[in-house]
Amino acid sequence: MENSQELAWRCAKKLYSNDTCSGFLGMTIEDMDKGYAVVNMVVSQHMLNGFPSCHGGMIFTLADSAFAFACNSENQIAVGAGCNIEYLRPGKEGDTLTATAQVKYQGKTTGTYDVEVTNQEQQIIALFRGKAHRLGTQLLGINND
Amino acid sequence: MENSQELAWRCAKKLYSNDTCSGFLGMTIEDMDKGYAVVNMVVSQHMLNGFPSCHGGMIFTLADSAFAFACNSENQIAVGAGCNIEYLRPGKEGDTLTATAQVKYQGKTTGTYDVEVTNQEQQIIALFRGKAHRLGTQLLGINND
Amino acid sequence: MENSQELAWRCAKKLYSNDTCSGFLGMTIEDMDKGYAVVNMVVSQHMLNGFPSCHGGMIFTLADSAFAFACNSENQIAVGAGCNIEYLRPGKEGDTLTATAQVKYQGKTTGTYDVEVTNQEQQIIALFRGKAHRLGTQLLGINND
Amino acid sequence: MENSQELAWRCAKKLYSNDTCSGFLGMTIEDMDKGYAVVNMVVSQHMLNGFPSCHGGMIFTLADSAFAFACNSENQIAVGAGCNIEYLRPGKEGDTLTATAQVKYQGKTTGTYDVEVTNQEQQIIALFRGKAHRLGTQLLGINND
Repeated sequence: MENSQELAWRCAKKLYSNDTCSGFLGMTIEDMDKGYAVVNMVVSQHMLNGFPSCHGGMIFTLADSAFAFACNSENQIAVGAGCNIEYLRPGKEGDTLTATAQVKYQGKTTGTYDVEVTNQEQQIIALFRGKAHRLGTQLLGINND
Repeated sequence: MENSQELAWRCAKKLYSNDTCSGFLGMTIEDMDKGYAVVNMVVSQHMLNGFPSCHGGMIFTLADSAFAFACNSENQIAVGAGCNIEYLRPGKEGDTLTATAQVKYQGKTTGTYDVEVTNQEQQIIALFRGKAHRLGTQLLGINND
Repeated sequence: MENSQELAWRCAKKLYSNDTCSGFLGMTIEDMDKGYAVVNMVVSQHMLNGFPSCHGGMIFTLADSAFAFACNSENQIAVGAGCNIEYLRPGKEGDTLTATAQVKYQGKTTGTYDVEVTNQEQQIIALFRGKAHRLGTQLLGINND
Repeated sequence: MENSQELAWRCAKKLYSNDTCSGFLGMTIEDMDKGYAVVNMVVSQHMLNGFPSCHGGMIFTLADSAFAFACNSENQIAVGAGCNIEYLRPGKEGDTLTATAQVKYQGKTTGTYDVEVTNQEQQIIALFRGKAHRLGTQLLGINND
């Protein structure tokens, strides 16, 4: 019998296999559980803004991917309805950023998830909060693949 | 004597030349003015999430870039302190998304900017609001380049 | 035949008659239209925080009421799902604050509304954005009262 | 020698003594510590919106007060710069609502605080996140009163 962590991993792998963006940016899923996801990304030279530090959009995208894996971890398709982010420290080229998403509340339809983005020195880079909306359909197919 | 629109364009070009991320994602600056920026991006096959529609992070990054160009348009370096986004419609592969950033309020140090992201059919895809923080330094050098 | 402005006024009056909080705080509805509401409130000595200027919660409550009148102006009951506010200037005791709510987007179920709070000198005090969720029922009764 | 919890209590009492709004709405401070505050409020018949459940502005005001006590708990005056709130369940007349504020990050100048509002059945009513800005002055006077 599959437990909730195994299901979360299968959901994440299914999502990741279709998620060209997360792959394109080199994200790797480090950990999964029910309502929980940890995703890594290295800040490459393509991810800088004009100042130059890591573009806020890239930090957001990392957090948003972790949010997506977490809010889809129970095999219920959910999409983001709205998000907010606060930037606390800049990310630098070569940094390994880690986004840890954790459910705060999951109701029948809507859910709220918090994501913390840290760097390799465990400093908080950004705080993200996302609101998810379940569509009422399952992520995995009939054969659960 | 340079007017505020010409200054806005020069600031945007300076910023864009160092902004590897906006270039990497194929963004183009369509219009600039004081506290105002219009930026385009085509949704490529690298920008999809697992569902598949345009990854929310890519829509955010486009809005965030327009926000950055708008809040740096007066030759005062400003960085994003926090942002929120609401997704109203999905973006599709091949869509041309347009982010229009407009200042709502700009004080001595902090400013608030609204960005609307639309598709080629003038449908609103997302609403973004960003808070900027001026650092007290100028964007353009002594020779204003 | 009733036009959209008359309907908006009737919805607001119905809502206001049951809204003990808006009355308790002395709010007055100044203008109504479809997706639009203007509400006034004088900052009394009961509304101060410890600094002392107007408590952020009172500014928020004023904005939230204007938002509620605007998002219920089409006789479709809507409740707030989430809001954010940015404080730009303090409110002072005796100030007359005006909240002007304007729809940004209204879909079948969800809508986004912007509210600007100004003082009697037309200075912006706060910017508020609210997300509304329609419940699928009408505000006015069978006899439209 | 005073510890951080005693200091937090003294800061909260000083703030509360000038905060006419929190007193007016019947809030009581239940617990204090460094970066932490717990505040209660009973939903009275003056706090209802038109539906009728507790006006979102009253829930926000409770959360905002807990946020203020928490972000001023180290004797550094801080004011709210921006906040967002998500409503998960309605509050009812007679409910005792509890706002628990906890620092997420506190830098030299800015800080981020999360507040959870629950009812007497430990159900989450709302999630609030506030950004604080320190002004560089102390809350307690020379004699620390």
